[in-house]
Amino acid sequence: MSSAGRPRDPEVDQRITRAAMTLFGETGWAGFAMEAVARRAGVGKASLYLRWSTKEALLTDALTASLPHVSDVDTGTLRGDLIELATQILDTYAGPSSRAAIRLMVEGRTIPGVAENYAATREAQIGAARAIVQRGQDRGELSPAVSVTLLLETLLGGAMMHALTAPPDGNAAHARRLVDFLLNAA
Amino acid sequence: MSSAGRPRDPEVDQRITRAAMTLFGETGWAGFAMEAVARRAGVGKASLYLRWSTKEALLTDALTASLPHVSDVDTGTLRGDLIELATQILDTYAGPSSRAAIRLMVEGRTIPGVAENYAATREAQIGAARAIVQRGQDRGELSPAVSVTLLLETLLGGAMMHALTAPPDGNAAHARRLVDFLLNAA
Repeated sequence: MSSAGRPRDPEVDQRITRAAMTLFGETGWAGFAMEAVARRAGVGKASLYLRWSTKEALLTDALTASLPHVSDVDTGTLRGDLIELATQILDTYAGPSSRAAIRLMVEGRTIPGVAENYAATREAQIGAARAIVQRGQDRGELSPAVSVTLLLETLLGGAMMHALTAPPDGNAAHARRLVDFLLNAA
Repeated sequence: MSSAGRPRDPEVDQRITRAAMTLFGETGWAGFAMEAVARRAGVGKASLYLRWSTKEALLTDALTASLPHVSDVDTGTLRGDLIELATQILDTYAGPSSRAAIRLMVEGRTIPGVAENYAATREAQIGAARAIVQRGQDRGELSPAVSVTLLLETLLGGAMMHALTAPPDGNAAHARRLVDFLLNAA
């Protein structure tokens, strides 16, 4: 977001992003510091400040890069879009960003300088997810009588619950089973 | 669990339990201390130690009292049991224990003296939830071909997602809508 300079080396950038997510997942905002992220990423502190002027900006960018991008989903069919959506959730909550993503649910609203962006991102993601289902209804793939909210809450919540409780394997296959189960309801 | 003495006054006990959940929700294990719980509950520290010899025991008891009791659910019908289950989840994640319950997901596994009990409770709850669906299948209320895992993950995940994203109102009515939507799929 408010990066001080343009990232130079995408590989270093990615290492920093991953380190930021891991640290935030482990310690939350209470233990989140530029120095600790730099150490964990194996880069100098100066190299971090070259890219991000504050830890708020760093965490915001790291979250944006690591969390699902619902607005990019558009496969042309409702089933395809929902499978892609479920796979994103499974990958997020069963992957290396899992703890950071859950922490964000608890702390996101209360971190100054991060909360505003978090709220805006959430709103945008909810809007994009609703648009996916509405496109399906417009194309006649789904009855307009179906509750968009119920379908999305059970899809996203079901994927999240699976990621948090089951061993992480075969996310794509599970996403298909989940979507077919729910489209059967709808 | 390992209370040093029997609770004397249930009202005081409840006040302490609530204070423990609120504090754990706000600060996580890092800020969880007997003194802070006592202050928040408006009781003396001695009064706390009379009941719980360690903060691990206090948090374990507070969680046990505040989180869903799946094994108590047995209304006689599958639909009734699932509605009760969904209501418990909605009440937990949209109520005053919400942040503590989510924190438990992130930190539960790593708190010494709490992790073991948390793992056992989780296992017991998953077992009780599966038993609910299996009883329904035995009574012929649900096809044995339905995936118990998918039904429970979408029910519990869907209720949790609703609690975390929608304004908290009408939990019982929402639980009925959710269950009817999913039983339609099954």
